[in-house]
Amino acid sequence: MTYLTARRQIVVEWGHCDPAGIVFNSRYFQYFDWSTWLLFEQALGVPTFKFSTEFDVTMPIVDVRARFLAPAKFGDVIEIVSTVSEFRRSSFDVQHRIENEGRLAVTGQETRVWTGHDPQEPERLRAKPIPAEVIDRFRVSPGTVAAAP
Amino acid sequence: MTYLTARRQIVVEWGHCDPAGIVFNSRYFQYFDWSTWLLFEQALGVPTFKFSTEFDVTMPIVDVRARFLAPAKFGDVIEIVSTVSEFRRSSFDVQHRIENEGRLAVTGQETRVWTGHDPQEPERLRAKPIPAEVIDRFRVSPGTVAAAP
Amino acid sequence: MTYLTARRQIVVEWGHCDPAGIVFNSRYFQYFDWSTWLLFEQALGVPTFKFSTEFDVTMPIVDVRARFLAPAKFGDVIEIVSTVSEFRRSSFDVQHRIENEGRLAVTGQETRVWTGHDPQEPERLRAKPIPAEVIDRFRVSPGTVAAAP
Amino acid sequence: MTYLTARRQIVVEWGHCDPAGIVFNSRYFQYFDWSTWLLFEQALGVPTFKFSTEFDVTMPIVDVRARFLAPAKFGDVIEIVSTVSEFRRSSFDVQHRIENEGRLAVTGQETRVWTGHDPQEPERLRAKPIPAEVIDRFRVSPGTVAAAP
Repeated sequence: MTYLTARRQIVVEWGHCDPAGIVFNSRYFQYFDWSTWLLFEQALGVPTFKFSTEFDVTMPIVDVRARFLAPAKFGDVIEIVSTVSEFRRSSFDVQHRIENEGRLAVTGQETRVWTGHDPQEPERLRAKPIPAEVIDRFRVSPGTVAAAP
Repeated sequence: MTYLTARRQIVVEWGHCDPAGIVFNSRYFQYFDWSTWLLFEQALGVPTFKFSTEFDVTMPIVDVRARFLAPAKFGDVIEIVSTVSEFRRSSFDVQHRIENEGRLAVTGQETRVWTGHDPQEPERLRAKPIPAEVIDRFRVSPGTVAAAP
Repeated sequence: MTYLTARRQIVVEWGHCDPAGIVFNSRYFQYFDWSTWLLFEQALGVPTFKFSTEFDVTMPIVDVRARFLAPAKFGDVIEIVSTVSEFRRSSFDVQHRIENEGRLAVTGQETRVWTGHDPQEPERLRAKPIPAEVIDRFRVSPGTVAAAP
Repeated sequence: MTYLTARRQIVVEWGHCDPAGIVFNSRYFQYFDWSTWLLFEQALGVPTFKFSTEFDVTMPIVDVRARFLAPAKFGDVIEIVSTVSEFRRSSFDVQHRIENEGRLAVTGQETRVWTGHDPQEPERLRAKPIPAEVIDRFRVSPGTVAAAP
């Protein structure tokens, strides 16, 4: 199965960098998060700010990992490419690749849980099955890439 | 009128600093915010996480200013000292001073609005009068300083 | 005198927002900083990462202020418009305006000092006169706006 | 082998939390970083800001992972406990555990490389063997815990 891919360029800002002059590691997890939201926005055609309301869902991360292969520094224009690698019943994995001048700089993987209010106890949040209609929206012919926003 | 003063030491972390090796300016507004919450926690004796609920209030900032007199760098242990300089009907000013090794490094002032749900239109947030009981809790004999947490 | 203006759209990300669902105040100072760098990049035609080296300069902020007129929330696409309002001998002011759906949401002003190594004591940084050639690059016919990057 | 453990309490600040009211995932990697620096400070008895200079070393992360078992919210006082799980020739692993009210909330692992200037080409940074004296400073009798700072 090949799922939709989101691509986005990000300018590495002064305030993203640490005293070594390179992107501080925690920033990459912000970039991952930005890109996951963008991916869902593009797949579902729903602006992210309406997303939680419309689907009664949040997508907390339960596991995330990154490998840093090459640094990015202030002023670099990096590109993040993200795709869902697997949908399971109520969780899914997002793969991220960040390239810097055509060179792979960072890889990452997030596992998120599709979470909503429990119909029995509306105060509680719990994992819910990911609707088939949602997964369908990510299915693309091989090679299709969502246009940058 | 002299109001309660909160003091707190903050360690300048690697990730707080920019490529010049000093605290990135936007971080100081985080420090201000941390200290304002601490000040209210100490004055009202209510843990911050219960504060909004108990008083049905948020305190958005409408104006904030900082002057940077001396830099702080990675590993510095700075001290932030904060106090309300004026309570008005539904807004108030907080003064912040940050010292680094006994030297004044940053001054700041926030103006915040006491904001809650409109009884007529519960969906809306609007400025509300600050309860006299809240202001009373900040009144102290001159020189009194709240203990560090 | 009218100086060059930089414009940039910024997507308000999930991680930019606080538990009230709106952009956390310190983030706006990141946006200001991003925009000031962009403005200098556009005026001087030098990529920001080469800027400090080429001009032997940093531009620390000595005073910054913001007024928050309307909130911005997750998913909003805001636009920041920045211009130098005054160049002095060795310092300058940058004015920032952030619009959200055509409505003025935030105004800000930074005062920065043109700072470089002291020729006598290369270990020290001190204020230096802003080169006339730098200021000239900001001079534009009224109404000229730098193209977005 | 049992190595030194660092413990530190961290107050979850308003600005650490996202619109879901819980700590935004990238913040945990800041906490990890803070704790790793603290661990080295405690083991080596060198203030962090002198550390890089004294040892001619930086410690870039090449791999980091976190598992989120339970959320932490605004006002929570969490505790991070960190220890080196393995020293190799020029890299090492740091294990982090974050507890919230006695309950394990987050686990993490960083792999960092001991990196310094190449004696042959001082412009270059490269992996260097971790000095035996450094590793020795982490060796403790089982159960020893460094005092909180």
